[in-house]
Amino acid sequence: MITVGIIGAGRIGKVHAGTIAYHVPGAKIKTIADPFMNAETESWAKSIGIENTTKDYKEIIADKEIDAVLICSSTDTHSPISLEAIAAGKHIFCEKPIDHDVAKIKEVMEALKKNPVKYQVGFNRRFDHNYEAVEQAVRAGKVGDPHLILITSRDPAPPPVEYIKVSGGLFLDMMIHDFDMVRYLAGCDAVEVYAEGAVLVDKAIGEAGDVDTAVVTLKMENGAIAVIDNSRQAVYGYDQRAEVFGSKGMVQCSNDAASTAVLSNENGVTGEVPLHFFLERYTQAYAKEVIQFCEAIEKNTDTPLGVEDGLKPVLMGLAAKKSLEEHRPVKISEIG
Amino acid sequence: MITVGIIGAGRIGKVHAGTIAYHVPGAKIKTIADPFMNAETESWAKSIGIENTTKDYKEIIADKEIDAVLICSSTDTHSPISLEAIAAGKHIFCEKPIDHDVAKIKEVMEALKKNPVKYQVGFNRRFDHNYEAVEQAVRAGKVGDPHLILITSRDPAPPPVEYIKVSGGLFLDMMIHDFDMVRYLAGCDAVEVYAEGAVLVDKAIGEAGDVDTAVVTLKMENGAIAVIDNSRQAVYGYDQRAEVFGSKGMVQCSNDAASTAVLSNENGVTGEVPLHFFLERYTQAYAKEVIQFCEAIEKNTDTPLGVEDGLKPVLMGLAAKKSLEEHRPVKISEIG
Amino acid sequence: MITVGIIGAGRIGKVHAGTIAYHVPGAKIKTIADPFMNAETESWAKSIGIENTTKDYKEIIADKEIDAVLICSSTDTHSPISLEAIAAGKHIFCEKPIDHDVAKIKEVMEALKKNPVKYQVGFNRRFDHNYEAVEQAVRAGKVGDPHLILITSRDPAPPPVEYIKVSGGLFLDMMIHDFDMVRYLAGCDAVEVYAEGAVLVDKAIGEAGDVDTAVVTLKMENGAIAVIDNSRQAVYGYDQRAEVFGSKGMVQCSNDAASTAVLSNENGVTGEVPLHFFLERYTQAYAKEVIQFCEAIEKNTDTPLGVEDGLKPVLMGLAAKKSLEEHRPVKISEIG
Amino acid sequence: MITVGIIGAGRIGKVHAGTIAYHVPGAKIKTIADPFMNAETESWAKSIGIENTTKDYKEIIADKEIDAVLICSSTDTHSPISLEAIAAGKHIFCEKPIDHDVAKIKEVMEALKKNPVKYQVGFNRRFDHNYEAVEQAVRAGKVGDPHLILITSRDPAPPPVEYIKVSGGLFLDMMIHDFDMVRYLAGCDAVEVYAEGAVLVDKAIGEAGDVDTAVVTLKMENGAIAVIDNSRQAVYGYDQRAEVFGSKGMVQCSNDAASTAVLSNENGVTGEVPLHFFLERYTQAYAKEVIQFCEAIEKNTDTPLGVEDGLKPVLMGLAAKKSLEEHRPVKISEIG
Repeated sequence: MITVGIIGAGRIGKVHAGTIAYHVPGAKIKTIADPFMNAETESWAKSIGIENTTKDYKEIIADKEIDAVLICSSTDTHSPISLEAIAAGKHIFCEKPIDHDVAKIKEVMEALKKNPVKYQVGFNRRFDHNYEAVEQAVRAGKVGDPHLILITSRDPAPPPVEYIKVSGGLFLDMMIHDFDMVRYLAGCDAVEVYAEGAVLVDKAIGEAGDVDTAVVTLKMENGAIAVIDNSRQAVYGYDQRAEVFGSKGMVQCSNDAASTAVLSNENGVTGEVPLHFFLERYTQAYAKEVIQFCEAIEKNTDTPLGVEDGLKPVLMGLAAKKSLEEHRPVKISEIG
Repeated sequence: MITVGIIGAGRIGKVHAGTIAYHVPGAKIKTIADPFMNAETESWAKSIGIENTTKDYKEIIADKEIDAVLICSSTDTHSPISLEAIAAGKHIFCEKPIDHDVAKIKEVMEALKKNPVKYQVGFNRRFDHNYEAVEQAVRAGKVGDPHLILITSRDPAPPPVEYIKVSGGLFLDMMIHDFDMVRYLAGCDAVEVYAEGAVLVDKAIGEAGDVDTAVVTLKMENGAIAVIDNSRQAVYGYDQRAEVFGSKGMVQCSNDAASTAVLSNENGVTGEVPLHFFLERYTQAYAKEVIQFCEAIEKNTDTPLGVEDGLKPVLMGLAAKKSLEEHRPVKISEIG
Repeated sequence: MITVGIIGAGRIGKVHAGTIAYHVPGAKIKTIADPFMNAETESWAKSIGIENTTKDYKEIIADKEIDAVLICSSTDTHSPISLEAIAAGKHIFCEKPIDHDVAKIKEVMEALKKNPVKYQVGFNRRFDHNYEAVEQAVRAGKVGDPHLILITSRDPAPPPVEYIKVSGGLFLDMMIHDFDMVRYLAGCDAVEVYAEGAVLVDKAIGEAGDVDTAVVTLKMENGAIAVIDNSRQAVYGYDQRAEVFGSKGMVQCSNDAASTAVLSNENGVTGEVPLHFFLERYTQAYAKEVIQFCEAIEKNTDTPLGVEDGLKPVLMGLAAKKSLEEHRPVKISEIG
Repeated sequence: MITVGIIGAGRIGKVHAGTIAYHVPGAKIKTIADPFMNAETESWAKSIGIENTTKDYKEIIADKEIDAVLICSSTDTHSPISLEAIAAGKHIFCEKPIDHDVAKIKEVMEALKKNPVKYQVGFNRRFDHNYEAVEQAVRAGKVGDPHLILITSRDPAPPPVEYIKVSGGLFLDMMIHDFDMVRYLAGCDAVEVYAEGAVLVDKAIGEAGDVDTAVVTLKMENGAIAVIDNSRQAVYGYDQRAEVFGSKGMVQCSNDAASTAVLSNENGVTGEVPLHFFLERYTQAYAKEVIQFCEAIEKNTDTPLGVEDGLKPVLMGLAAKKSLEEHRPVKISEIG
């Protein structure tokens, strides 16, 4: 039986708590910590069987009974808490990104070398049924050598401009998922990045120093060319697609919708829009990543995504930012 | 070089004339006849290279140079003109149905026994790319033994009630195509028919003694069960689908649309409606049937659909009518 | 807080237990009973927080603390246990069918009149996202007046012949779901039924006195014509589709698959087969029906499906059987 | 009645001849010229009603009766013959590209200023039903302001390397269609281009100095970002798709296939591959462009694509080539 502590009781912390409570019979949550812990959260915690609640995550770090922590707190705390938890010998599931500062991620990597606990980064999309099916087809050789990788990833609506100001911007808060996806589907790293960006959705985003629409082209180690397109606002929903084209064929995945219902009338043949909300779209993926983290602990195997997998997309995001600023292709090796 | 006469210069006569003029290099149209021949039709005929026009189809029958006739005149003239053309030794392409009176069709069959010219009935849908692909999959064994055959066939709008009064009704003017399709896809004949019908589109159709909505279940010789559903009015277009389900799989075809364009917005993901107009939907099929008729003459092979294929759907239609009237399953052998 | 007892710890009993344990915060399972209760089941029960296990369901009936029971035992016990539970004043969720014997269902109805506890029948498909979306479109008037209702429902593989011998046959163990669906989508009852059946999948099914392939046509109270096709074996998976066609349009739902991935290569453009297993296909529907049952108790509202909804499909199934035996259309009013 | 001369009796010359012969009642072909004119071509010409055949296109230029010429000869002759035909006062339909040399296209432009005959360039895809539907949706404001334009265009198999050596390379012989499409769908010109290319299909193509796989990102005048991906070899067919994403929605078009038939079996749900052959895929578009050219002459209106539309994609192609060579974004204004 694995004893778990959860640091951060926001939206995603609660999702992960639910997964462990309901879907991981071999784990139990002893404590959940959140600086804004309140009666409502305490009551919710009790209802799913969590023993303790606290405002101070250090109680979790200090608790000898706790084997593993899930770091679901704000981004700036990910790397320092990772370091504390590593020092305390706890296995770690850390929400993405580990940090926007490469040096800080490398500190975590160094700490892990000395104290090799399990470490998993929360790139949930790898655990999604659609992307998994694409990746399995690629890995099974069904498309032959990959030549082109196309990823479309558009949010239903932009986050508040206040968030954008601190998030690291589109390349680090949004496209970072797609950078991970490119690595996952290509089965290798990117070598070079060229970014094109524009402010087309909301001028306020531009005033905050970011773009809201972007296309990034990547040269991959295996010779394939990858393209990611991002928009902060797709009015028809959360648009999440991928395509891998290669020497023997092509595999694509498209969106999930609330139902397969289709209405035919004089105006056309109309199906449902893609699911709008990321927690709904990726419900199963969020569960699956945490289940696999627990399995890696139980079976003492590697986690499906290590700390390196947390670093690489940050490097790609920083290279993309630099490319946009300097209006030229940028090698990943120029970063960090 | 085959010399052709066309009897009937209505919509379908003109379509077939165009096919021969443009797509059958080995045939030429010498004469087209129509009781309502006028200057406009004459001018059209000249523009596509037809030598003669006449109001009297008997000129065509009497013309020794003419090898083959296309009978595109009104339904009641199909069997008498067939008999005349057979007697004159001309090959015949006859629009469906040969007649609603089984005895008259049998007269044509008898005449053909004595004077075996080529005879083809105009069930155009067998030549449609979608139905052909379904049939080829069935014939190639891809669905194994057929167990269920489902045909949906709905018109975009009902014909004038005046037409319905003389057309023989839904089972003979509309579902007759689907009876042919069932035979084509099953690869065998029907044994028994059960018809359910209703007046749901337009009361005037009911007052004219017909139904506008019908479902017919058929037992096929090979044990399969077939179902046809018909409606006189599908507001979203001409709905033409088929499905064959068997021991090894299922093959289906769906509608053709004007384009593959799909619009995604807040209201849904909307594609185009099915093509509305039968001449547009089946353009290629109309051409193909006439091309194959000409080929059968050139190569002296069987036509793809013989006079028997004209008889069988009429028997099925009459059985369906009887079933609806007598509210019981009716064997095909009870008819004629 | 509702206290629940579950009678029957087979596949579906366990599914419902999981739903209550994880998704109904306002309910707890006190006891689960099963005549074959064993250590494994006891251990599972404990892991999801069930207090007691027993071999004798009467403990549940007798337990004053228990407010509601879920009857998930074998079909022949549904009506007698229903009667006992009604007498004990417990709310009831009863798996379908209540009984194959109309008289016994009517006994339950009588008992409920005297002792009006909540009663819900387990027609799970009404709670499926696809069928719900179709029904909502119909109810919202998007297809106008319904004219045709088409239901395709094919199992991936036939049950053991031993099961078929006692199940009541295809019309009562399999098509009963579709009879319920027809009522749900039409928004009214059937008036008359005509059944066509065949043994095409496995001769042993025929020797057991049943058919394995069937098409049933129904006249509905609102004038619409409905068609259900069933097969015991669709090699490509669990094929579950519906279509409602009406005066203003058509709404259809198709199958769910494991992913949206599509592979294009020289052999074609290939997507995934429908989900094979009914518990996987209807996971969410099974949860939803039990959640709504609990809500009806909490809020003291009607259950979404009452005892009448349990009776009607049985009448339809018996009428279909009679129709097949007597080879004629049978009115529902002839039954019971 | 327009009298037409056709220069070049290769594949595309024959297609255009057929269009005029069969689908443009207001035009007749007087002469067709080809340096390799032979008996077979003469016989074909006669069969579709062309009066004269010749090896010398200058006969056409010199023929006072001829109003319009279609230039379907080899690429290097397009601009010189254009100049001769303009001087002779003939309307011109010229296959793409007018030339790879910007100076030569500008000569044609100058000549047209002095002698303003009708001039149309053969970018057939603008007349395709799928792209037209996308463009109409964009023009109707259905996607709002365009933000992203994605074009996928992949050939079923690479041309002979000998062709590639003289064709101008992928950006000028293949992607040129997509550059035109970007302008068509965006409704404006490109400002800047960034090209990524690779040799992944066939090393011989690389040895010939070209790439076989490419991704080009474009900044458009209206702020939108466009992406084109090209491959010389898609084993599943001729892959021709477009997507325009904007502030109010997205419109996409996908491929045409030979039929809508779909086979479901244990291996999946399989539809047909895209049509392989460009003449089959764009049959209707090739006809439509020539019909509209003839209409522009008859009605004395502008042709749907003028000489500027012939120039722009060449500039874009040259900019893309330069971008690939210099490994940097290149402004269109740097060219020519």
